[in-house]
Amino acid sequence: MRKEFTKADIEILKNIMLQRRDVRGNRFLKTQIDDEILNEILNAANCAPSVGFSQPWKFILIKDETKRDKIYQEFLKENKKAKKIFEDNKLYANLKLEGIKESYINLAVLYEKPKKSILGQTSQKKVGEYSVVCAIQNLWLMARAYNIGVGWISILKPKKVKKILNIDKNYKLIAYLAIGYVNEFLDEPELLKLNWEKRKTLEEIQTI
Amino acid sequence: MRKEFTKADIEILKNIMLQRRDVRGNRFLKTQIDDEILNEILNAANCAPSVGFSQPWKFILIKDETKRDKIYQEFLKENKKAKKIFEDNKLYANLKLEGIKESYINLAVLYEKPKKSILGQTSQKKVGEYSVVCAIQNLWLMARAYNIGVGWISILKPKKVKKILNIDKNYKLIAYLAIGYVNEFLDEPELLKLNWEKRKTLEEIQTI
Repeated sequence: MRKEFTKADIEILKNIMLQRRDVRGNRFLKTQIDDEILNEILNAANCAPSVGFSQPWKFILIKDETKRDKIYQEFLKENKKAKKIFEDNKLYANLKLEGIKESYINLAVLYEKPKKSILGQTSQKKVGEYSVVCAIQNLWLMARAYNIGVGWISILKPKKVKKILNIDKNYKLIAYLAIGYVNEFLDEPELLKLNWEKRKTLEEIQTI
Repeated sequence: MRKEFTKADIEILKNIMLQRRDVRGNRFLKTQIDDEILNEILNAANCAPSVGFSQPWKFILIKDETKRDKIYQEFLKENKKAKKIFEDNKLYANLKLEGIKESYINLAVLYEKPKKSILGQTSQKKVGEYSVVCAIQNLWLMARAYNIGVGWISILKPKKVKKILNIDKNYKLIAYLAIGYVNEFLDEPELLKLNWEKRKTLEEIQTI
C-alpha cells in the first residue's frame, strides 16, 4: 500500500469531498446495494480516528419498512414543530428534509458509552461522541466514492428513535442516516442553490 | 469536474483513510507548510456537511510559541491527573500524547453558537457541534493526502485553552490540533501496535 500521496490523489479526494451531498427524498433510488459495498462503507467508518483507539461506534442497518415508517412518523411530528419556528420563511414548508422511506436502507449510528476510563477522554468527555462523527464523515465520503448518497436526518428526537429500534441506555444516538443510490447528485448543496445560506469564505471561517 | 467515481478512485480514498494517523511528539517536523497548502486543507474542512448549511466552524491557526507553551503547560496539568487514573497501566506514563510544540502549527477548531434558528437543528442541538467534527475529519484526510500529519490533543480543559487564545463565550472549542510534516507515518495506529486496544471487527461494530 502506498504511503506517499500525489497531486493526482489530492485532486481525487478533493473531488469526492466537493461532490458529496446531503441527499433527500425522491433523489434516492431503491436499487439494491450489495452487501460487499455496504461492508466497504462500514469499513471506512471503522478506520476513522477515535479517542484512545476506543472505536466507540455502533452501526444498526434498518431495512424493515414498518420501523422506517414509525421513524418517519416521528419525523413528521418534529417537523411540524420546526415549521412553526420557520413560519416567516415560506421556503421551509416546501423543503424535503429526509429520505427515510425512499432510500435503500437506513443506518442508526450510535455511541457506546464507555465502561472504563478511556485514554484521552479524561478531560473532555465529548471526544467519544466526536469520534463517532469522524466515522460518519468517513462513511459519507466512501459512500460518495461508490456513487451512493447519504442523508443525515436530524429532525428526530433521539429518544423516540431509540425506542423504535429497541436501543438501550448504554448507547446514544449520534445520527440517523438514509443511504442509497441516487438519480442525481446536485452540483451544489441544495440550501446554497436555494439561497438559504451563502457559502462561507476562507477568510470568514478564520475570523472570530 | 467528474461526478462519477471509479474503482481506482475508491482505492485511493481507502488508502488515504487507512494511512491517516493521529500524530504525536517527535514524529512532527518543523518544516514550513506553504500557505497555499494550509488553505487547501482549510478548504477541505469548509466543504464538509453542516446542519442547515450553517457552516458553524471557525479555525484559529496558532504559530506563536508563547501561546503554545502556555497550552502545553495546561496539557501537563491535565495529563498529571490522567496519569493517576491510569496508574495501574504502566504504559500510560510513557506515552507521548501531544505534539503541541513539535508541530509546525496548531489549530483550534471552534463551534460558533447560532444567533438564529438553524434548519435541521431544532430537534437535536448537538448536530451543530457534529458539523464541526465532520469538517475536522475532512481536514484530517486532506492533510494526509498532502503527506501532512495531524494530532488531536484532547487532554486539555477547553476553558483554559479558550482563555489563552482569548476566545469569547460565543464559541465552543471542539478540537485542538497539531499539524505538520512528519518523519514517519506509522503503518498502524500506535495504540493498536502497543496492544492498548484491539481493532474492532465489522461484526462487533454492528452488534449491540
